Amino acid sequence: MRAVWAETGGGAEVLRIVERALPEPQANQIRIRVAAAGINNADIVQRKSGIAPAGAPPGLGLEVSGTVDAVGEDVADWSVGQRVCALLDGGGYGDFALADARSVLPVPDDITHCEAAGLPEALLTVWQNLVVSGNCQPGDTVLVHGGGSGIGSMAVQVAKMLGARVATTAGSPERCNRLTELGADRAINHNEEDFVTIVSEMGGADVILDIVGGPYLNRNLAAAREGARIVQIAFLEGGETTIDLALLQHKRLALTGSKLRPRSAAHKGELTDAIRRFVWPTVARRGITAVIDRIFPLAEVADAHRYFEARRHFGKVILDLQN
Amino acid sequence: MRAVWAETGGGAEVLRIVERALPEPQANQIRIRVAAAGINNADIVQRKSGIAPAGAPPGLGLEVSGTVDAVGEDVADWSVGQRVCALLDGGGYGDFALADARSVLPVPDDITHCEAAGLPEALLTVWQNLVVSGNCQPGDTVLVHGGGSGIGSMAVQVAKMLGARVATTAGSPERCNRLTELGADRAINHNEEDFVTIVSEMGGADVILDIVGGPYLNRNLAAAREGARIVQIAFLEGGETTIDLALLQHKRLALTGSKLRPRSAAHKGELTDAIRRFVWPTVARRGITAVIDRIFPLAEVADAHRYFEARRHFGKVILDLQN
Repeated sequence: MRAVWAETGGGAEVLRIVERALPEPQANQIRIRVAAAGINNADIVQRKSGIAPAGAPPGLGLEVSGTVDAVGEDVADWSVGQRVCALLDGGGYGDFALADARSVLPVPDDITHCEAAGLPEALLTVWQNLVVSGNCQPGDTVLVHGGGSGIGSMAVQVAKMLGARVATTAGSPERCNRLTELGADRAINHNEEDFVTIVSEMGGADVILDIVGGPYLNRNLAAAREGARIVQIAFLEGGETTIDLALLQHKRLALTGSKLRPRSAAHKGELTDAIRRFVWPTVARRGITAVIDRIFPLAEVADAHRYFEARRHFGKVILDLQN
Repeated sequence: MRAVWAETGGGAEVLRIVERALPEPQANQIRIRVAAAGINNADIVQRKSGIAPAGAPPGLGLEVSGTVDAVGEDVADWSVGQRVCALLDGGGYGDFALADARSVLPVPDDITHCEAAGLPEALLTVWQNLVVSGNCQPGDTVLVHGGGSGIGSMAVQVAKMLGARVATTAGSPERCNRLTELGADRAINHNEEDFVTIVSEMGGADVILDIVGGPYLNRNLAAAREGARIVQIAFLEGGETTIDLALLQHKRLALTGSKLRPRSAAHKGELTDAIRRFVWPTVARRGITAVIDRIFPLAEVADAHRYFEARRHFGKVILDLQN
């Protein structure tokens, strides 16, 4: 079977399509014949370092869609031939991949594998940050930074599903239009408008999901309503920055953050279970979709990484293993 | 009746003992004949500015002990002559003060008024920060900075009552000894020892209560265990500081804070109710006490403020209205 490895760290040129033996599912695992895989920032981090996290398979790829090909001992929920998508520990860019049975979701009939491959990582990340860490409630005002990212475009949709009013930031009128079409009540072009002013006029944000960090931190504190939760998903403009603790204390804010990848299989299973119960019915009727920007065949995986790193895509970048 | 006002902002010399009319309790208020009043940092802030917060009485003083002197309409829980202590909106440095009936606690027989006057503000602040914001659980490791302060010496005792293991910082061997006597498992002399090293050797802190801020913020992130809560009660060494968001995210930490004084009467009432149910039985058998450093007669209120601001006291500084 084909797999994609980065045996030395570096740019997209280090990616190699290699031949590997078929992996055998252990107890509580399934083997998926992969139809499509999502590209995520964690893959870029792994490629640059050339090192997979402890316990993860060495191949790249955190999420796939495909069909169940084999099941390990003690797996009762899944059977061979079923269409599924899953969050993985790694190894998703390949013809076959192993998944913990707790992190698997069924793919509804109307949804293509390329669409389904864009769902697991964004949905679990959004659920962790918006609901578990952010405690989003109906009627809350939610500010989603980087609305055009895979996570951002999903966060806008999930927040709307939960009955929140959603403001989001993006870098062009076209991207803002697409976010309004996805349901955002207010899309803010951060190159022309000040999000603090606009969100303050909306009464302040109860939950802020941020991927920018750096100069955004104190601006987030300023845009927050009393008692708000600010959840740091990433910090593309720097993780070392200044904070105004007086503002944090005065407004009783909570600043928090987490990473999905290092969490336990049990924790990911709990998130997957919540998504199946509370989000999947809406996914099945296409009320929430993975926004697909572009699909690359596996042979062009290096180009796919370059395209992803240029950060001009809107939504998800997908690898098609069937082409 | 006597009251203490700061009509212009400034040093302790602006404090004036003035004559004022007896205040009349409104619905849901009681009037307390004050026996003793606690001195708090919020009093210093108010004196320096010369301005009481919106809605607060102009006189200084946030907590008192004494006897119920009159009750307003709709007050069923309290009767004239009863020994009580209370958190106030202000006006506690005086012969009589008004309290919202929800923020009043009965004073057990064995406890003097000077001791009881040191309980309300520290207990409500500790409950808000340790339990509500900090979600302290049995078996947690709690780090209390500034253990020798009124809040710190109370936090050590309450955290022990809740089944936590407690580390605390102070600035001398004598203060460390006193904190160990109050129940701290490990008292750290911050002039000679590195709290990050010591708390890390203990496995890291699940809850950190900090009054220092500034250079302590990233050291708190370093001393925290995965999933910990860091609660900013004050920031004596600066509120504008740098933060390492990568550490916050990597350990899934939550940084939060709040101020007690601006909270609603209903919120303070809820805290008071929790304290009456969960802490007061231990207070009644002297398992938790307000540590009293020094008692000043009302006539020496300016000296009491100067003494408090020198920050060499251990525990509470109290005004005695009966002398």
